[in-house]
Amino acid sequence: MDNKSSSNTGHSKSTRVSLIRMASNTVASSAISGREETVIPVFPWFGIDIGGTLVKLVYFEPLDLTAEEIRNEGEILVNIRRYLTSNRAYGQDGVRDDALELKNIELGSRRGNLHFIRFPTSKMMTFIDACVMRNLHMLTFKIFATGGGAYKFEKDIVEKLKISWCKCDELDTLMNGLCYITKLNSKECFYYEEPQNDANPNKHPFTFDINHPFLLVNIGSGISILYVESESSYRRITGTSIGGGTFLGLCCLLTGCSSYDEAIQLASEGDSTKVDKLVKDIYGGDYERFGLPGHIVASSIGELCKQIPVECSFGHMNQSDKRDQASKADLARATLVTVLNNIGSISMMCARTENVHRVLFSGSFLRVNDLSMRILAYAMDYWSGGEIKAIFLEHEGYFSAVGCLRQFLMDANNDERDLINSSRQ
Amino acid sequence: MDNKSSSNTGHSKSTRVSLIRMASNTVASSAISGREETVIPVFPWFGIDIGGTLVKLVYFEPLDLTAEEIRNEGEILVNIRRYLTSNRAYGQDGVRDDALELKNIELGSRRGNLHFIRFPTSKMMTFIDACVMRNLHMLTFKIFATGGGAYKFEKDIVEKLKISWCKCDELDTLMNGLCYITKLNSKECFYYEEPQNDANPNKHPFTFDINHPFLLVNIGSGISILYVESESSYRRITGTSIGGGTFLGLCCLLTGCSSYDEAIQLASEGDSTKVDKLVKDIYGGDYERFGLPGHIVASSIGELCKQIPVECSFGHMNQSDKRDQASKADLARATLVTVLNNIGSISMMCARTENVHRVLFSGSFLRVNDLSMRILAYAMDYWSGGEIKAIFLEHEGYFSAVGCLRQFLMDANNDERDLINSSRQ
Repeated sequence: MDNKSSSNTGHSKSTRVSLIRMASNTVASSAISGREETVIPVFPWFGIDIGGTLVKLVYFEPLDLTAEEIRNEGEILVNIRRYLTSNRAYGQDGVRDDALELKNIELGSRRGNLHFIRFPTSKMMTFIDACVMRNLHMLTFKIFATGGGAYKFEKDIVEKLKISWCKCDELDTLMNGLCYITKLNSKECFYYEEPQNDANPNKHPFTFDINHPFLLVNIGSGISILYVESESSYRRITGTSIGGGTFLGLCCLLTGCSSYDEAIQLASEGDSTKVDKLVKDIYGGDYERFGLPGHIVASSIGELCKQIPVECSFGHMNQSDKRDQASKADLARATLVTVLNNIGSISMMCARTENVHRVLFSGSFLRVNDLSMRILAYAMDYWSGGEIKAIFLEHEGYFSAVGCLRQFLMDANNDERDLINSSRQ
Repeated sequence: MDNKSSSNTGHSKSTRVSLIRMASNTVASSAISGREETVIPVFPWFGIDIGGTLVKLVYFEPLDLTAEEIRNEGEILVNIRRYLTSNRAYGQDGVRDDALELKNIELGSRRGNLHFIRFPTSKMMTFIDACVMRNLHMLTFKIFATGGGAYKFEKDIVEKLKISWCKCDELDTLMNGLCYITKLNSKECFYYEEPQNDANPNKHPFTFDINHPFLLVNIGSGISILYVESESSYRRITGTSIGGGTFLGLCCLLTGCSSYDEAIQLASEGDSTKVDKLVKDIYGGDYERFGLPGHIVASSIGELCKQIPVECSFGHMNQSDKRDQASKADLARATLVTVLNNIGSISMMCARTENVHRVLFSGSFLRVNDLSMRILAYAMDYWSGGEIKAIFLEHEGYFSAVGCLRQFLMDANNDERDLINSSRQ
């Protein structure tokens, strides 16, 4: 069986033997296709996005197993389900984001919990070996995967796990997952009313209508910016290589830290104005001279306001006395502000060109705390005079993995409609 | 007398006493205004651009002094002229770019040599003190200045040197200087036919017509991108804080170097692919899989081709083994490629939005060697499929200083035409 979605990527298809064993269960009124008769593929149900830095895995835990299904499930599958759902950490680096778990949802005509799991891409081979140790290679099942790693690790996965590996287009699955999750979860989207207010940035839920044009900025290791006209029509506008991976790589070099969480923690304690040259450093005079945008309330001025506008990122660091004064935390903060300002500035330019007023930011880079989101929100607010709104998402980096899971379900039903609808312009 | 151009900057005008003493010389057929009668201001003639990193000074050395002028010139002026024109280095940090000198040109109805001098902005106070030591404060003359430092150092300059200090808009003077120099010097503009060819990038002069729309990307400490419709009409589209100052600041932090020349030298010896994650690092497989643009000749593949496309700048540096393998030169090269790729990518986006096919790159960042220009040219070439041409300029960072000198001459004639013509949209 051909994988329809991989034909969208432009890369050559791999030769592989389909090992899929289709289940014969049928149920009425499917959530995924709207058909009366729906094919439900065998468990386990996974979707996986192997990015440049992180692997994002979604796992659907069925809650409505019939007595017959439980009898037939087998030890391997039971063990996998128990292992994944009863732990929050897997080895040293794997994490289940249990706060993100979507409980008791309907997916593929089944009811269950959707779990969100991540680990570093550098541990992908360890993960494959762990799957073999847990005898996953004894099962015959199918996984839909995306991200560069879906190509890079294909050979190892197919050889060692003997599964059917279906590569999907990254942006198609991103859109597919985004559409699904934003409809399913009314609290998925949010914004900051006062991002510059350190004490209370006023986080609010945002009612999102996917069928009005918006910009989707996906911040992974690198950045992709999509113009989305509606659920069924979108195109990639541009991207940049200065993304989450740049932040982490530079922080490791500049501060000696070794993880994203450590880098973000350092950044939250630092002051980028000791590292960056601000407009006021070049023009001299008081900060007030260059003003705040009219709509920023004076009482809500916080640290963020001092960081923008930056004239030159790292502009102080050619002077040895300034280097001596800058702490590791200051360097981490400046790295964060540099990366985010660049993303904000490019996004703003795209939003103006495409004449949209909503910019959604997704991607694993925004995980852990709200500092990055507030910096982005303030930058967009500052540059647009409050006209363009930055909107964030609770499931940040998991949309492509969710999209893979949905394509897996659609594939089982040979339902090409969604694949066609969501293909790029 | 008000300075017309400073009203374009949006900053408050400084209160100052005009000390100008107008000369009474008149000559026929002026080069600057086309009038029959032209007022020639007293010497010395300077234009100065005080940027975030470098001060750029242009000095006009008259070759057609009359016997009377020579008699009246005075010791201070003679000493200044001799000092500036007979040296190539001033103190530890000042440099006269004698290769750029424009010899025996006509400017402001006089014939002379135009000299191009630069020193670090961090030495501005030393420069002011040196001027006092050479008794410049005993003369009454006027200098037109631009760049952030024209504001930052105004008080010190006016107090210590007792001169009339006229602040000009940075972008107006940039355009003014660019128009003048590209008309004066037929070899000012050039391009690379094969930027990716390390052995012979094929540098050619480019016949430039300023009255066809183009993009002007000025790379100083930070970046400004202008859309120029014609000599008399332009607007700033966007900018980024990741510029020349970011390259230098990061190189100082990452490699321990202490000057721009040292950083560029290091970068020329390094390999950014040890630092950056390329598309092939994420997708796996051979480089060839991702192809070269069709118009890149296979025989001319050089180091540059390996550096693009970058998926994630510094993307390898979160891994300690990769950090151990990266040399200082590799880090400097990656910093350079990161900054230039970002500039190239943003410029490309702007060029497409504005539908122009020529992008001029100016600014002091492109000084010293052709590596940066070739990286930019290759990036533009790669992304545009050869459609958009990157054009470079011999006098890179000096256009705003030249523009100041021209505004000084126009001001002496109360000629507002050029000022109005070159004001921003």
